[in-house]
Amino acid sequence: MTAVETRLATLEAKDEIRELTARYCHAVVDGDADTIVTLFCEDGVFRSHTFAPEGKQALREFYAAGVGAKTHKPFVQNHVIEFDDETHASGRCSVEIRVLQDGEAYTQAGHYHDKYRKVDGAWRFAERHYVRYHNVPWREGWQK
Amino acid sequence: MTAVETRLATLEAKDEIRELTARYCHAVVDGDADTIVTLFCEDGVFRSHTFAPEGKQALREFYAAGVGAKTHKPFVQNHVIEFDDETHASGRCSVEIRVLQDGEAYTQAGHYHDKYRKVDGAWRFAERHYVRYHNVPWREGWQK
Amino acid sequence: MTAVETRLATLEAKDEIRELTARYCHAVVDGDADTIVTLFCEDGVFRSHTFAPEGKQALREFYAAGVGAKTHKPFVQNHVIEFDDETHASGRCSVEIRVLQDGEAYTQAGHYHDKYRKVDGAWRFAERHYVRYHNVPWREGWQK
Repeated sequence: MTAVETRLATLEAKDEIRELTARYCHAVVDGDADTIVTLFCEDGVFRSHTFAPEGKQALREFYAAGVGAKTHKPFVQNHVIEFDDETHASGRCSVEIRVLQDGEAYTQAGHYHDKYRKVDGAWRFAERHYVRYHNVPWREGWQK
Repeated sequence: MTAVETRLATLEAKDEIRELTARYCHAVVDGDADTIVTLFCEDGVFRSHTFAPEGKQALREFYAAGVGAKTHKPFVQNHVIEFDDETHASGRCSVEIRVLQDGEAYTQAGHYHDKYRKVDGAWRFAERHYVRYHNVPWREGWQK
Repeated sequence: MTAVETRLATLEAKDEIRELTARYCHAVVDGDADTIVTLFCEDGVFRSHTFAPEGKQALREFYAAGVGAKTHKPFVQNHVIEFDDETHASGRCSVEIRVLQDGEAYTQAGHYHDKYRKVDGAWRFAERHYVRYHNVPWREGWQK
């Protein structure tokens, strides 16, 4: 590749990765676990304070149970992306999530530490690590 | 165009379209209906659950009535854009809106299904279809 | 530079400036005043309705006092950037901030009018002017 092509490829990769995180949000809103799973690598993992489903089958079960009721509304912002090489990158992005829990409106906030890998020509999540600041009833607010 | 120029033009178009949705938000906050209308095509339409003003005159009346009091604060995220050809594209982006209704603080959330068209060298809204998840008093939260 | 290189450089600059505002948010969340200060020019200034620390020493004191308790969670969106020349740009972006004040959850919303300058090969804040819409207890909502 020429220098120009390399620079262009970097911008295209960043654009694709930002849309990857956006597609994830839309699929969560739509309650579409199958689509979410296609956004991960075969050996992808989602880590949170309590869960760490790994691999497509575990991810599908995790997301089918989690988003099936279609009450999660995630909003992603503040995305920074850095490349290790042409097929590996990492990123950090912030998230606010509106969700019903036992019929009550909750708000979450946190950020994702992501690892991305390019597989079969498409960038996917190798890992999402969700660092949660709080998960509280909307009416009450948070205390940390 | 060379292959490089075509790839560059695609990235420039996506950047311009993302800024189009941002300019829309800023104009809403500023209560500037005239600027909002310039962001639409001549035959542009805004569809929601209750309204569908179409064409610049109807849009100007709709937005002048809606944003004149300057209480809407929209925040757009999660933007995915796809091109049909060099002058037509569609997108989906999420939105949270803070707004006063009868003096009380409300929160809305939803997403836009957008159609964009390039006219006279600039990308504009051919259609915005607002899918609203909820519109509720801030103090109370939502139930779906 | 060729025309292609100039267009590419513009997109790269916009990407870098958007990440600059994201890095700012992450450093605020992390309570990392030292990193925040590196994002400003030597003579950088942060203007709000009550404060206007100017220069790196004043900024360091301002941010160390402000973010040290790690209760600020800013979320930036709606970013529009315009260039004056190759090393000067301005932008407007919206922000929502979750923050604890005297142990109570508050929400802020507003926007930044930014001036960016490229110094030693990196885009930095020459000025951030924070226009605040409201700063209210989360449970109560806002009235303007």
